[in-house]
Amino acid sequence: MLIVQKYGGTSVADLERIKNVAKRIIKYREEDNYIVVVVSAMAGETDRLLNMAHSINSIPDEREIDVLISTGEQVVSALLAMTLKTMFCDAISLLGYQAKIITDSSYTNARISRIEKNHIMSELNKGKVVVVPGFQGVDEEGNITTLGRGGSDTSAVALAASLGADLCEIYTDVDGVYTADPNICDKSRRLDKISYEEMLEMASLGAKVLQIRSVEFAARYNVPILVKSSFIDGGGTLVCKEVSDMEKMEVTGVTYNKNEVKITVTGVPDKPGIAAHLFGALSDAHIVVDVIVQNVSRDNLADISFTVAKTDGRKAFKVMEDAVRALGKGSVSINEDIAKVSIVGLGMRSHFGVASKMFSVLSEEGINIMAITTSEIKISCVVEKKYGELAVRVLHSTFGLDSEAVIEEK
Amino acid sequence: MLIVQKYGGTSVADLERIKNVAKRIIKYREEDNYIVVVVSAMAGETDRLLNMAHSINSIPDEREIDVLISTGEQVVSALLAMTLKTMFCDAISLLGYQAKIITDSSYTNARISRIEKNHIMSELNKGKVVVVPGFQGVDEEGNITTLGRGGSDTSAVALAASLGADLCEIYTDVDGVYTADPNICDKSRRLDKISYEEMLEMASLGAKVLQIRSVEFAARYNVPILVKSSFIDGGGTLVCKEVSDMEKMEVTGVTYNKNEVKITVTGVPDKPGIAAHLFGALSDAHIVVDVIVQNVSRDNLADISFTVAKTDGRKAFKVMEDAVRALGKGSVSINEDIAKVSIVGLGMRSHFGVASKMFSVLSEEGINIMAITTSEIKISCVVEKKYGELAVRVLHSTFGLDSEAVIEEK
Repeated sequence: MLIVQKYGGTSVADLERIKNVAKRIIKYREEDNYIVVVVSAMAGETDRLLNMAHSINSIPDEREIDVLISTGEQVVSALLAMTLKTMFCDAISLLGYQAKIITDSSYTNARISRIEKNHIMSELNKGKVVVVPGFQGVDEEGNITTLGRGGSDTSAVALAASLGADLCEIYTDVDGVYTADPNICDKSRRLDKISYEEMLEMASLGAKVLQIRSVEFAARYNVPILVKSSFIDGGGTLVCKEVSDMEKMEVTGVTYNKNEVKITVTGVPDKPGIAAHLFGALSDAHIVVDVIVQNVSRDNLADISFTVAKTDGRKAFKVMEDAVRALGKGSVSINEDIAKVSIVGLGMRSHFGVASKMFSVLSEEGINIMAITTSEIKISCVVEKKYGELAVRVLHSTFGLDSEAVIEEK
Repeated sequence: MLIVQKYGGTSVADLERIKNVAKRIIKYREEDNYIVVVVSAMAGETDRLLNMAHSINSIPDEREIDVLISTGEQVVSALLAMTLKTMFCDAISLLGYQAKIITDSSYTNARISRIEKNHIMSELNKGKVVVVPGFQGVDEEGNITTLGRGGSDTSAVALAASLGADLCEIYTDVDGVYTADPNICDKSRRLDKISYEEMLEMASLGAKVLQIRSVEFAARYNVPILVKSSFIDGGGTLVCKEVSDMEKMEVTGVTYNKNEVKITVTGVPDKPGIAAHLFGALSDAHIVVDVIVQNVSRDNLADISFTVAKTDGRKAFKVMEDAVRALGKGSVSINEDIAKVSIVGLGMRSHFGVASKMFSVLSEEGINIMAITTSEIKISCVVEKKYGELAVRVLHSTFGLDSEAVIEEK
């Protein structure tokens, strides 16, 4: 098998952990697998380098940022390759320009355009483990680029796709994808399998296991991803194409996001073009809007609520104040005490009544729903923040995800 | 003018110093000079990285060492380029593979074979300051190589030669080349000019201002080097071709080296092939021998003394014991309490009696000379270590180098 393994920052945080990673690689290598390893920078290193850049200038030159921060992964690549050689496993590091990971020229947030696999394949065919720094590439002119936060996941999946790997393993500090955040719901279970679509929704809703772009990439090229812990053996969640045995459950997971705020615009004229006026202003300010609710009109006046990331909250409020002033009517309020609780599952497509079940169980607990948004495989409800964690646990239990319930079904 | 400026590790040790370096560069740039800057890693960084490698393995893979340690200069290149841009001076960093500094494949100790100057020239012609990490290059296959300790000096001189620069400025923590180490001789003076040949001898004898290879390179391509302090304005020593005004003095400088030990082989058969036997054994063990003295033979037995670097002392002693055992006759002793005091000067070629003047003044001070070695422009004497610093001061005064003496001559 040809396997791409990616190790995150906590898995390579010091020389002892790098040695453990090397041992794991050697185990796979001894089973006659071809191995390409993608590494992150040591935990904290990218931030250390960025802090230096930002103490020079609040907006440092982006080309030079990439030259600077790409060294974090370069250091780990060299250390891992020399550790492997010390343990009698032939290995070689290939940096972005050597592995020919070609990107566009959007410094600090580049996209991979292609990978010329010949150099990597020729080293693999010599029996070497190839270690590639994640997160980095080069543009057509040979300038160093980086792929944005979490970009090493994307590097790994892109390499797996371009090399035609049998599997892309992502090693991280959790042992897989859970039905809910175990810190909130102690009955949450690790999923053995999850589809790309569900994983994308979960990632968008705040599950931090995989970078969204890497899942999109994997789905497009049909690269199976196995998410595993680098500290515990076994376990893991396979992220792959939808298969029939996934559809037994209505709901695959429950997610929770308390990093949004709700902004409400009250009493604006209810006429065509109002929504376009308000959301156009937000878009011009580069603010991404999540859930939107427009209330039923009364007296030809409308109320519109929407949520945005907490970091954009104050800015969005200001933009709305200006927009409402331009309309000459209405007022703006902001509510920071909200949480978004979502259920995700391919099963929704074939099971009726999932939404009404969700709404009624929340209602039974006395939890008021402030806004709702849905997609084909997801339903999100905005609730008061103080009820957020309770809502997660109730939904997790209602949709049969609790670990005891599963044991009973056997 | 096209100027190559090189800044050492102490000159770029933190962001404040990098800012000072940027200010200096901008001053030169505003005078319409084209500037290529070569930077070292922050002081201590290369050692920090090497320590990590050596805690993995006492002899880590050399290719990966170069991948690892080249990041030190890469970080400073990016930080300096972004600092320059912040100060409204257009700049770009070009790494070894981008600046096309091509070397052989001798990892950790590579030699520059050529520099393809087009990329650098095109950025200079756009009005940019080009920042190049010193110490690193790439081989013909694109593998990262490094040039050995102090290699950034060589990078700077090689760039100056290949770009046809008017001047190569080496900024360091001292303001030039001195007639003697100011820590030993408080009457030492900074030289305004020194020839390549003298600088080579001084560097070989322990003056640490410039790396020997960089001086050889400069001499071969006739690149004038100006050694300056990055902390003090003005001053500096120009290292250049021999010119007539250099020859007024018999001696240009006095050097002192206490990092050698003397090994004496006593009572070996005085017949052809003995020296070849002994020094062949040292050469096989990769030990470099410095001063050699063979005593007059008595009873067909010879005594041979030589000095080696202190770090090779014990190893050389062991090699000599084995060699003497093979001869079946003789004994070996080691003396660690020695120092080598040397005088250097092109003037020796045209002034008679320099050597006898040196020997007699040492004798007048009661300093016994244990061994002597000479070249066309240098005389070295090995003396007891306790007299070493005294010898430097006496010679400095005798050959008219004391700062007061110079003032009196005016």
